[in-house]
Amino acid sequence: MAGSSTGTVFKVTTWGESHGPATGAVIDGCPAGLPLSPADFRPYMARRRPDGSLMSTNRREADEVEILSGVFEGMTTGTPVSLLIRNTDQHSADYGNLADIYRPGHADFGYQAKYGHRDYRGGGRSSGRETAARVAAGAVAAKILGMTGITFQTAVTSVGGFPPEEAPGIIKQYREAGDSAGSEVICTVHGAPAGIGDPVFRKLDALLAEAVFSIGAVRAFEIGSGRDVISLRGSENNDAFCMKNGKVVTETNHCGGILGGISTGGDILIRASFKPTPSISLKQRTVTRDGEETEICIRGRHDPVIGPRAAVVVEAMSALVLLDSMLLNMTSQLSSFISFYQKK
Amino acid sequence: MAGSSTGTVFKVTTWGESHGPATGAVIDGCPAGLPLSPADFRPYMARRRPDGSLMSTNRREADEVEILSGVFEGMTTGTPVSLLIRNTDQHSADYGNLADIYRPGHADFGYQAKYGHRDYRGGGRSSGRETAARVAAGAVAAKILGMTGITFQTAVTSVGGFPPEEAPGIIKQYREAGDSAGSEVICTVHGAPAGIGDPVFRKLDALLAEAVFSIGAVRAFEIGSGRDVISLRGSENNDAFCMKNGKVVTETNHCGGILGGISTGGDILIRASFKPTPSISLKQRTVTRDGEETEICIRGRHDPVIGPRAAVVVEAMSALVLLDSMLLNMTSQLSSFISFYQKK
Amino acid sequence: MAGSSTGTVFKVTTWGESHGPATGAVIDGCPAGLPLSPADFRPYMARRRPDGSLMSTNRREADEVEILSGVFEGMTTGTPVSLLIRNTDQHSADYGNLADIYRPGHADFGYQAKYGHRDYRGGGRSSGRETAARVAAGAVAAKILGMTGITFQTAVTSVGGFPPEEAPGIIKQYREAGDSAGSEVICTVHGAPAGIGDPVFRKLDALLAEAVFSIGAVRAFEIGSGRDVISLRGSENNDAFCMKNGKVVTETNHCGGILGGISTGGDILIRASFKPTPSISLKQRTVTRDGEETEICIRGRHDPVIGPRAAVVVEAMSALVLLDSMLLNMTSQLSSFISFYQKK
Amino acid sequence: MAGSSTGTVFKVTTWGESHGPATGAVIDGCPAGLPLSPADFRPYMARRRPDGSLMSTNRREADEVEILSGVFEGMTTGTPVSLLIRNTDQHSADYGNLADIYRPGHADFGYQAKYGHRDYRGGGRSSGRETAARVAAGAVAAKILGMTGITFQTAVTSVGGFPPEEAPGIIKQYREAGDSAGSEVICTVHGAPAGIGDPVFRKLDALLAEAVFSIGAVRAFEIGSGRDVISLRGSENNDAFCMKNGKVVTETNHCGGILGGISTGGDILIRASFKPTPSISLKQRTVTRDGEETEICIRGRHDPVIGPRAAVVVEAMSALVLLDSMLLNMTSQLSSFISFYQKK
Repeated sequence: MAGSSTGTVFKVTTWGESHGPATGAVIDGCPAGLPLSPADFRPYMARRRPDGSLMSTNRREADEVEILSGVFEGMTTGTPVSLLIRNTDQHSADYGNLADIYRPGHADFGYQAKYGHRDYRGGGRSSGRETAARVAAGAVAAKILGMTGITFQTAVTSVGGFPPEEAPGIIKQYREAGDSAGSEVICTVHGAPAGIGDPVFRKLDALLAEAVFSIGAVRAFEIGSGRDVISLRGSENNDAFCMKNGKVVTETNHCGGILGGISTGGDILIRASFKPTPSISLKQRTVTRDGEETEICIRGRHDPVIGPRAAVVVEAMSALVLLDSMLLNMTSQLSSFISFYQKK
Repeated sequence: MAGSSTGTVFKVTTWGESHGPATGAVIDGCPAGLPLSPADFRPYMARRRPDGSLMSTNRREADEVEILSGVFEGMTTGTPVSLLIRNTDQHSADYGNLADIYRPGHADFGYQAKYGHRDYRGGGRSSGRETAARVAAGAVAAKILGMTGITFQTAVTSVGGFPPEEAPGIIKQYREAGDSAGSEVICTVHGAPAGIGDPVFRKLDALLAEAVFSIGAVRAFEIGSGRDVISLRGSENNDAFCMKNGKVVTETNHCGGILGGISTGGDILIRASFKPTPSISLKQRTVTRDGEETEICIRGRHDPVIGPRAAVVVEAMSALVLLDSMLLNMTSQLSSFISFYQKK
Repeated sequence: MAGSSTGTVFKVTTWGESHGPATGAVIDGCPAGLPLSPADFRPYMARRRPDGSLMSTNRREADEVEILSGVFEGMTTGTPVSLLIRNTDQHSADYGNLADIYRPGHADFGYQAKYGHRDYRGGGRSSGRETAARVAAGAVAAKILGMTGITFQTAVTSVGGFPPEEAPGIIKQYREAGDSAGSEVICTVHGAPAGIGDPVFRKLDALLAEAVFSIGAVRAFEIGSGRDVISLRGSENNDAFCMKNGKVVTETNHCGGILGGISTGGDILIRASFKPTPSISLKQRTVTRDGEETEICIRGRHDPVIGPRAAVVVEAMSALVLLDSMLLNMTSQLSSFISFYQKK
Repeated sequence: MAGSSTGTVFKVTTWGESHGPATGAVIDGCPAGLPLSPADFRPYMARRRPDGSLMSTNRREADEVEILSGVFEGMTTGTPVSLLIRNTDQHSADYGNLADIYRPGHADFGYQAKYGHRDYRGGGRSSGRETAARVAAGAVAAKILGMTGITFQTAVTSVGGFPPEEAPGIIKQYREAGDSAGSEVICTVHGAPAGIGDPVFRKLDALLAEAVFSIGAVRAFEIGSGRDVISLRGSENNDAFCMKNGKVVTETNHCGGILGGISTGGDILIRASFKPTPSISLKQRTVTRDGEETEICIRGRHDPVIGPRAAVVVEAMSALVLLDSMLLNMTSQLSSFISFYQKK
């Protein structure tokens, strides 16, 4: 089943494996008239790239995005924008021993069960490498949203259960132990208008949940007060409405900017919990493809914590969802339709 | 934008407002040959219905499901199954005063911002009443899944942050105070085969996240260890693979039955956090449609906690996602395709 | 597989069998703010209803459309509009003998091969009765289009290969012979703006082709000069552009208002060829479900020619496609997006 | 709006402009286990390539298809298959004068009206060059279908209204006159099983109509007897059922292998009418982007007739539709679902 596309009007399709020649994204439905050049991708791609610190893998790739279509004389034409990112630093030899063994915490076994044939090099399609293409697409969405005043603020808020300032020490310790740590990312969207999202299955928070949960290692998704609502009373959790500069706003923001699946105009508060990197060098029990029990120590280059590089992926996925929902929202009222076509 | 359909092959479209004449669902793509009668819906619908206890509203509706199409001589024909549930106990008069005022914690303001015109009676389309149609559709999915040995176990695991056995006392206290409580629901799916779900945007957990988050009051969705992964080490969170009765299984199940978006064959563990019912009789500050600040005390019949009646909705949505993914998974391997058509 | 929905933003799902209790349509994504009442459907439904003439069946149904949701205080709310049309004049006894026999020219055998179980009464889901729901949905689309000055002109242009004025005589003769006649319908859309349709698979003419071909008995679909282009030269078939009242127009309209899948602003010319009604009372050879060769004479009430009642169905399907494409077209240019949200 | 994807399970997305660096297709949902290499594309691509004869353009491109993902050790893995075809012989200078002028019979004006900004070089996205990517994708579909015994026979059956054997003379004459000719292509599918297609909007012929009409220059689409049904009687057009080698077949095949939108098991007969190439060197009247009336003589390399190179595109689109429908059809019966998962 086709599962590599997301979005309705601003539709993104990604392709590529960790150790293939390239990965890429096709953005179909990008509005015409957007100035776009390879430079637009660099800040976003840089945030996803390993930074050489203790917190990330040693894999080095320029991740320069090539635009193969959909842009003419520096502006989008409304036709598909095909983006290509070459894979240049694969060490496939590191993975040869994984052809016949299932890594714990990875998709290896599931892919084998589903497809009967899989690209085991570096996790193939299930590798975090795939997110490079999402980030490239997200950069385009974020640029468009920025033009209407919408901005994102995304940060790692916990590593191994500790505040981010403790992260370097924690990571050093885990890495030396051959282990890895969980993490949390919070993404805040400022400036989204009220009224975005659709009842009932396409609620804005439902689409955000799907999008963020489609990032490999996410295990929890929360909006606003999130899981804490369990212990709150209605009188605590409800956000009073009031007027501010002639606009309806909420005094507090427990709802995280979304009520009944529709944006309120307040900040959208998204929280994602990432599991610890499953690739660890500590010895683990597992089985082979032939059903033999065995042990495995995973070598290769792996981030000891996922959040730092995944933060921009959360932001990218959120940008894709919000832009698509805002484009679709243009069709909500008959009066907008009529005035659009009367202008013509 | 059309947002009331979910699923690709087993596609469910719901319609209806809280205070309209009826609500309903159209199931398009239900496989032919399924015995189906109104009796199949009753146990599921009963779980969603107020039980007269302290924990639920006093609204009483038989919620008998009428089958208008797609079933002939007691069996589905493969064509759309149209299900109708009449609304019989609306008290619209209770809501007259809500025409011009936004209830805190509700979708009222968002709908007004989006559509400019809304059915304010009982929340209209954003009412929990809408979930009756989902539950009816979910009953069909669950029946089919049951035929392959898949079962669900769903329970309220927290009310107001307290264990369920304390719930009656908590609820009585909150209700008397004119307030409401948050809650948690855990749904466990037994017997799902390995290999279900699709890379990369249609991961099984991503689809479950979207489906469960489309239930109005959900604020957090978790799989397996969920948010707790933040504090776990890779060596703790990874589930070792081993052999059991000739099958590959995981020794533990922190992953909640899903790795890399694909099912492992283990139990699927789904956790949803529900906010406290936003309709409370305590006085709240809000604004009118004309932008005047005011106060509101919400009357009418409301559950003081959402989880008990929503548990079956979580189960229904999970069943819809799993069935649709399993149907699509039949197309994953070329050998299945060829053997299917060679039999013909 | 779900096949009873059409459209992306203005999405219509139909359900119902010829001899079930009712048929219906759910319109999801109808813009909010449209005045809508049962009276809006009557003119459209009347055009589809048998008129008592020689050209139509004797089946009599009021075809009054009930609105079950999505309309409040006489205006659409943006939520699903559920439409119900009761079946009141079925003569199922006429069809009892069809349980085990495949009517030539009908879907009976295909449905049996596909589903293994089918509602044989009156053709079940494959009956022309299903189009009542489409016409109801089309009436809503046509009303909206009318508000921007778009109108439809649809006529039967051939019966049995003869001009329409000869139709009554032809029909009388065929009917007396127990036979039926083919027909042609031409639908002209006036006032559609330029720029509607999307490259490359969602060309406006491709979507119209799909929509019109989804009407049971259609065997050919043509745009503009249609099949005649085979014999034309480029210099004959190309339509020169010129200016008229400050607008770009084509001097001729061989292209039928669509070039490269995008509307030109000229009249859209749609032509559909309908096969002769397959239900005829003349004796025909066929086989039973058990594989026995046999003969059949089909009784019951059948139109001797399909075009006269199907004309409005062609118009309805065309209206659905055009409206959906126009709604989606609102998202084509970045400048429209930005100005839409800056107004907010 | 995203319009460059087609298919549900076997989903194809194309991208690329005539004069960009490359064009390509992403096939998402290709079943795993299919042997696939660049050699598989060559016969199909060769049929689309200009052959140096009088009937085709002089543009020369190797049209070698590169596989960038989704194939591992020579077999598909079930993940997206990204195909790249480089553009190597563009003469953009030929098109510089088209920046500000609308070519009659082309999409230029429509794109300008829709997007406000367009790639005018060689028609940009609306160029026939885009079909290279479709043909590559179609080659994969046709290979899979071939494994179940389904084959295609596709031919140009008319050029300028004359039989194909007269074509060279006709073409020479038209080309010398600076003009172009219409053409007809017939595609016959042998061996498709009965029961393919879905009621009511996803009828097999409706999907074929959409797919074939999405090829730029198609102006008529017919199934079986096509437009000729207008003049036929029911007793002539109905195909009697009979038994042959233990299978239900039709004695004749006026229905073109599809009844009520579902395949009968007989040959599927598809007919497409192509307009004459709109690019002609004869002088034509048109207007500029600034609304000035002017004249144009189109230079550059153009086929004088479209059918010969488009025949394989008709076949490719038909293969895509049929494969996707056959994959989806695996989910039609409950018994198939249950037996699929009981094997597991």
